[in-house]
Amino acid sequence: MMTQDQEPVRQRLLSEATRLFAERGFESTSVQEVVSAAGVTKGAMYHYFDSKDDLLHEIYGRVLRMQMERLNHFADGPGTVTERLHAAAADVVTTTAANLDDSKIFFRSMHLLAPDTRKSVRVERRRYHERFRDLVAEGQREGTFRSDIPADIVVDFFFGSVHHLGSWYKPEGALSGPEIGRHFADLLLASLRPA
Amino acid sequence: MMTQDQEPVRQRLLSEATRLFAERGFESTSVQEVVSAAGVTKGAMYHYFDSKDDLLHEIYGRVLRMQMERLNHFADGPGTVTERLHAAAADVVTTTAANLDDSKIFFRSMHLLAPDTRKSVRVERRRYHERFRDLVAEGQREGTFRSDIPADIVVDFFFGSVHHLGSWYKPEGALSGPEIGRHFADLLLASLRPA
Repeated sequence: MMTQDQEPVRQRLLSEATRLFAERGFESTSVQEVVSAAGVTKGAMYHYFDSKDDLLHEIYGRVLRMQMERLNHFADGPGTVTERLHAAAADVVTTTAANLDDSKIFFRSMHLLAPDTRKSVRVERRRYHERFRDLVAEGQREGTFRSDIPADIVVDFFFGSVHHLGSWYKPEGALSGPEIGRHFADLLLASLRPA
Repeated sequence: MMTQDQEPVRQRLLSEATRLFAERGFESTSVQEVVSAAGVTKGAMYHYFDSKDDLLHEIYGRVLRMQMERLNHFADGPGTVTERLHAAAADVVTTTAANLDDSKIFFRSMHLLAPDTRKSVRVERRRYHERFRDLVAEGQREGTFRSDIPADIVVDFFFGSVHHLGSWYKPEGALSGPEIGRHFADLLLASLRPA
């Protein structure tokens, strides 16, 4: 059971782990360093997280859950399939840019996770991708989008761009997250217009 | 001076390093393990490579140099800007899929490289991106491509998809590298059609 008193400890552990994994790498950070930085005991940490793997999983997991909720909101909302896909695509770029450290740390260290943890993240992400793909497929069925390219390939194409934001996007750069989101969504929707 | 007798040692070191970095991670592989696997002495290795960083740099560097040559070939070749950009875009997907381990290992471990090595890779890659961007800008100037989206953003959008191939593409999957290359190039060129 989580009370309001306990919640800050969990948040503090996650944010100190994020900071340390970003600075030194997941592989070079020990559980002891995370608990020291958060000012809690190892026992307190193991109350919330099973392992260092679990911390890394959760850093990305909370972003992914938030993005899943927002995708459902746009996908099931009002508007044409073009409007809904554009809104969902722009939004996932904006939220990825706003949580850049989390995804960056995750993608760079995902291969170090235990197979089971890695598998469970894959399952969560697949669910996200399938909802996005269904939106593309909906537009293909009604003839709004081209259908000579498989919807799965369209999703892999677009999410490559999203996941790779971490390698070049700078919050202090010329364009904001929402501006890049609009450009990326414009490119995606244009790429889907029937020839 | 490199003779034909020496070259195989260099290649063997690179391919054993690639295999070990893929299997155990760059961070968990020692120089000793690489030289043992290649059946050479540490001295022989230091004849060709300054450090473990240098090995990782070169694994990606040889792919990048090959891609730069091919990009120049297509960009400077005959044909309309649409044809040249399509050929270059499809080709870089094909060569990335054919050398997937190399880029995968590199992107996942790039943050572990010494700052100088990292910087020199960034410079090489920037050169590649600039040549690609110039091709997009050429089409924008002549009115063949939309110009409401900065050419740099178009390049970041497309190369996100290319760099991310490593996270989902399987050589034994339904689509071959060249087929995915054609789909990605079709999507890119369609996204650039003026509205």
